[in-house]
Amino acid sequence: MLDQADLDSVFRALADPGRRVMVERLSRGPATVSELGEPLEMSLAAVLQHVQVLESCGLVRTRKVGRTRTCSIDPAALRSVEAWISQRRAMVEERLDRLAEYLASTADPPDAVLTWLTDTHGEPRENQ
Amino acid sequence: MLDQADLDSVFRALADPGRRVMVERLSRGPATVSELGEPLEMSLAAVLQHVQVLESCGLVRTRKVGRTRTCSIDPAALRSVEAWISQRRAMVEERLDRLAEYLASTADPPDAVLTWLTDTHGEPRENQ
Repeated sequence: MLDQADLDSVFRALADPGRRVMVERLSRGPATVSELGEPLEMSLAAVLQHVQVLESCGLVRTRKVGRTRTCSIDPAALRSVEAWISQRRAMVEERLDRLAEYLASTADPPDAVLTWLTDTHGEPRENQ
Repeated sequence: MLDQADLDSVFRALADPGRRVMVERLSRGPATVSELGEPLEMSLAAVLQHVQVLESCGLVRTRKVGRTRTCSIDPAALRSVEAWISQRRAMVEERLDRLAEYLASTADPPDAVLTWLTDTHGEPRENQ
């Protein structure tokens, strides 16, 4: 698992749409820096800078042979951020499920609960 | 699903360790702004600023009753970033699995493949 500082840098790296395009491209297989730059309207120097950001946070590894730098994705960093998010999402959903069960078992749920559900989750849940 | 700009802002919001502490806290249930600030050594004004970042990217909803602002998490944004990451991670792993199958079926895999695996994924895979 990544530590806090690594999570910071992975989330920051993924906050840029150009870098996400590169991660998407690399999910399909290794690519050279020039290949990564093709769909993006930016200089090779700019592409290289983004690659360095992706490399320093551990999302991407690169290997230089002659004048060509080939990039590939490192799934470990993706797994770590995915785990962080999915654990939180699972906690939230489990809590909402318990609330839904409570509502289903209660003929007359307190107004406060219904108001909170409507406010925080858009649609009021039906009380069956 | 969130669009590109929303994904930018959710990833940027999660890049801050203090805001991740708040998301963790809210995964366990709604909390007031003061409660969110308790474990963090920062002013109430700073906490409120972070809450606004979390709210504007859709991760958190808030509701003010009297002088108390209560925050709760919106699972939709978490689900969107989780989906983005897990789709990429699944693509990477599927590709590595296909490669492993190829290696398992080949008595003498090309050196280039073994070098690439060692370089990009730490440990060379065994060829069975």
